[in-house]
Amino acid sequence: MADRYANFANSGLGRAVVKRLGLPDPPRLRRYRAGDPLVTGPVLLGAAPGGRLASPVGKLLETAGVPVTETGAAGTKYSALIFDATGIGDSAQLRALFDFFHPYARSLSASGRVIVLGTPPEAAAGPREATAQRSLEGLTRSIGKEFGRGTTCQLVYVAPGGEQAVESTLRFLLSGRSAYVSGQVIRVGAGSVTVPADWDKPLDGKLALVTGAARGIGAAIAATLARDGAEVIALDVPGAGDALADVANRAKGRALQLDLTAPDAPERLAGYLSAGPHAGVDIVVHNAGITRDKTIARMDESRWDSVIGVNLTAPERVNELLLERGLIKPGGRIVGVASIAGIAGNRGQTNYATSKAGVIGLVQSTAPVLAAKDITINAVAPGFIETAMTAKMPLGLREAGRRLNSMSQGGLPIDVAETIAWFASPGSATITGNVVRVCGQSLLGA
Amino acid sequence: MADRYANFANSGLGRAVVKRLGLPDPPRLRRYRAGDPLVTGPVLLGAAPGGRLASPVGKLLETAGVPVTETGAAGTKYSALIFDATGIGDSAQLRALFDFFHPYARSLSASGRVIVLGTPPEAAAGPREATAQRSLEGLTRSIGKEFGRGTTCQLVYVAPGGEQAVESTLRFLLSGRSAYVSGQVIRVGAGSVTVPADWDKPLDGKLALVTGAARGIGAAIAATLARDGAEVIALDVPGAGDALADVANRAKGRALQLDLTAPDAPERLAGYLSAGPHAGVDIVVHNAGITRDKTIARMDESRWDSVIGVNLTAPERVNELLLERGLIKPGGRIVGVASIAGIAGNRGQTNYATSKAGVIGLVQSTAPVLAAKDITINAVAPGFIETAMTAKMPLGLREAGRRLNSMSQGGLPIDVAETIAWFASPGSATITGNVVRVCGQSLLGA
Repeated sequence: MADRYANFANSGLGRAVVKRLGLPDPPRLRRYRAGDPLVTGPVLLGAAPGGRLASPVGKLLETAGVPVTETGAAGTKYSALIFDATGIGDSAQLRALFDFFHPYARSLSASGRVIVLGTPPEAAAGPREATAQRSLEGLTRSIGKEFGRGTTCQLVYVAPGGEQAVESTLRFLLSGRSAYVSGQVIRVGAGSVTVPADWDKPLDGKLALVTGAARGIGAAIAATLARDGAEVIALDVPGAGDALADVANRAKGRALQLDLTAPDAPERLAGYLSAGPHAGVDIVVHNAGITRDKTIARMDESRWDSVIGVNLTAPERVNELLLERGLIKPGGRIVGVASIAGIAGNRGQTNYATSKAGVIGLVQSTAPVLAAKDITINAVAPGFIETAMTAKMPLGLREAGRRLNSMSQGGLPIDVAETIAWFASPGSATITGNVVRVCGQSLLGA
Repeated sequence: MADRYANFANSGLGRAVVKRLGLPDPPRLRRYRAGDPLVTGPVLLGAAPGGRLASPVGKLLETAGVPVTETGAAGTKYSALIFDATGIGDSAQLRALFDFFHPYARSLSASGRVIVLGTPPEAAAGPREATAQRSLEGLTRSIGKEFGRGTTCQLVYVAPGGEQAVESTLRFLLSGRSAYVSGQVIRVGAGSVTVPADWDKPLDGKLALVTGAARGIGAAIAATLARDGAEVIALDVPGAGDALADVANRAKGRALQLDLTAPDAPERLAGYLSAGPHAGVDIVVHNAGITRDKTIARMDESRWDSVIGVNLTAPERVNELLLERGLIKPGGRIVGVASIAGIAGNRGQTNYATSKAGVIGLVQSTAPVLAAKDITINAVAPGFIETAMTAKMPLGLREAGRRLNSMSQGGLPIDVAETIAWFASPGSATITGNVVRVCGQSLLGA
C-alpha cells in the first residue's frame, strides 16, 4: 500500500531529483489530527458586490475562531481564499473573480484551500445570472489544476436560505479532513441545521451502520465515525471473521455478520435494528462493494449478477425495508459509495460501472423522496485510493491512477471516511442528492 | 495538422510495429460521404421485456432502408447493436444488458455502433426504475472504452412521447457523421417533429448564421450546413478578410464581417438579418471563440476580459437581441460551442474554462425559456480536434490529447460540424438543453 515514489519525492535527495527531471511532485497533504485548528493561517475572504454570503460566512468563521480578513495584504501567506460570487449577475461581472484571484494566487500556503461560493444556477433570477453562476465551475476546476502544492479548490452552491447551513461544509473544506477532495461542486440546500455541541464530536449520540466494514475503506469509515462520536455497527459477511471483530473493537462498537445479498438479509437487519430500547439507526453507510473485472465479451453471468447484487440491489433493498419500517430516524443520513468508474466508465468494468452509476441514480432519485422524512442521501465517488485492492493492480495502471490527479498521489481510506463523516454530520442536514468525488481531482471523468 | 502517427499505424509496416510493441492503435474511422448508406451491414436490435422503443425504432429503421434483425446469429458481423432498455424497471433486470451484449460483443464490424435507449431517470415511475435507468450510463461509457476499433457507444434517453422524435438521432449515430462522438448521453424530448423531405438535405430552405467561420472548425461548420442544404451567412471579424470570403464562396453563401464584441454589434447583426423580404434566421451557431492562456497568477486583465467577452458575453447579447426582435424563427436552432476545458477545467485556462462552462450554463438556463418559442439550444463540447491551433501545441501535450481517448486519435473539424448539423436538423426539434462532447470519448472529464 505504500506509495514509495511519494516518500522518495519528499526526501532530501528526492526533492532535487524530482525538480531536475520535471517528475510528478506529490506534496505531503495536510490531514486532520484530533485537536488540529481548522486552518493553519489567516483566511482571505472576498466578494463580488452584492453577494449575500460574505457577511454570514465572515461571522461564522470568526465565531469558529478562524482568523479571517477581508483586506488582502501583499506578502501574507493565507491558508484559504474564500470568494463569495453570489453577487455576480452576468458574465461581464465574472471579472470580479480575476480581480480577487489574480493578485493572491501565489499567496496560499501549502495544502491551501480555495472555496468559491455561488448560487445554484437553477435558483438564479434568470438566464444571465444562471449562466454566470454556472461558469464558476470552469474557474474552480481550473484553479484546482493550476495551484498545486496540495491546494484544493471547490465550488459550493448555497441555495438562497441556506446561508446558515453552510458551516459544516466550510469546516470540512478548510480542515485537513478534505485533503484529497478537490475540483468538486457541492450543493448546500436551504434550511436551518442543528449545530453540533462539539464540532470534534459531531456524531455524539448517533448510531451508525457501516457495511463492508472489515477492511480497507470500510474499516476507516467505522473508525472515523467512532472518532466523531458515533456508536458503530460494523457489518460484513460472515467470512470476514476476526478482521470485522477487530474493527468493531477498535471503534468500541458492535460487529454484525450478515450477507446482505441473502434474500432475508434486509429482514434480519431490520430485526437487529429494532431490538433494544432505542430502535432504529441514524447513519447508514453502504460501503460494501465488490469488483469482478472482465470485458463483457469474456464475462460470465455470475460476475454480472454478483456485482450488481452486492453494489446496487442490496443497498436498494436495505434502504427500502428500513425506511418502510421507520428504522432510519428523522435526521437520518444515508451515504452510498459510488466510484469514478461509475462516472467515466472503465474498460473491463461494465458490471462495476453499471452498479456504481446506479448508486448515483439511487442518490438522485431517492433524495427528493427522503426530504419529506428529514433524511438525506448522498454518495462519495472515490478515485484511486491506496488499499490492498489497488496494491494488486499492475504497476503501469497503478502509477497512472496515482499520478493523474491534481495531488500526484493516491488518496487514503481516511479521505473517503472523512467525506462520509461530513455528510453524516447534523450540520449537513440540508445537503442531499450530492455525489462528491474523493479523487484528488483525477483527470478522469465524463 | 497531419496525424502522422495514425498514418504510420495504419500502414503495413506500422500495423506490425504497433501490435508488437502494444502502442496506441488509432483505427481509420468511417466518416460520412455524400451518398453513403446509413450503415455498412445488418443492425441487431434487442430489448428488455416491456420496452416501449424497440417496436417504433424497428419500423423506423426498416422504413429508412436499414437491414434490421431482432434475432442474432453467430458469425454475423453487425454494423450496430441497438438495445431498448426502457423495459428495465429495477437493478435486477439490468441482467438483460449482459444477456444482449455478452454474446454479440465481438460481432461488431469496425467503426461499429452501440446505442442503448433508455427512459430519462427524471421521467421514471419511481426510484427503482430511475436508479436502473441511470445505471445505463455506466454500461455505455464502459463499452465505449472496451470495444475499440472505432466503435462508438451512446446512451439515448427518450422521454415518454418522444418515440417518433428519435429518428434524426438514430440516423446521426448510425452514420459516419458521428465518427468521433462516443460515450455520450443524449436526451430526446417528447413531441412530434417534421421529417425532412430529403435526409441528405435536411436543412433545405434554412438560413444559417455561423460565427468565427473563416477558419478551422467554423469553416467546416459553414461547409457542412451548406452541404445539408442551408444557405449560410459566414461571419467573422473584419481582419479575417480573404479566408472568410473563400469559406462563403465555397458554401455558396454570404460573408459578413463584424466584430461581435463591439457594443453595437448585436444591433448591426439584427439590422442585417432584418433586411430583405424574409427577415430572420433559422440556425445560429456561436462558434467564434478565442484562447488567451496563462495561469491566473500571470494573466493580465485583458486576457480575462477578451476571452469572456468573445466566448460568452457576445453570444448572450446576440441571442437576447435576436430573440427580442423575433429574428430567430419558430423552429429555430441555436448551437453553442463549449469545450472539454469548460467541463473539466484546465491549467492555464481559468478564463477559457470559465467562458466555456458559461456556454453550458447558457444552454441549460435558456432551453426552458426557448421551448415556448419552438426554438432549441444545445452545445457541442469539442475535445482534441486537429486544427491549426492544436498543431501549435507542444509535442507531449499534443500527443496526450490525441491518444487519451477511445479512438486513440484527434477528431477533425468535420466531426464537430456534423454534430452541429444534427442539432440543426428539423428532425431534432425535441432535442434541447443537450451538451454533447465531440471528443472520441476522451478520458478527461469531471
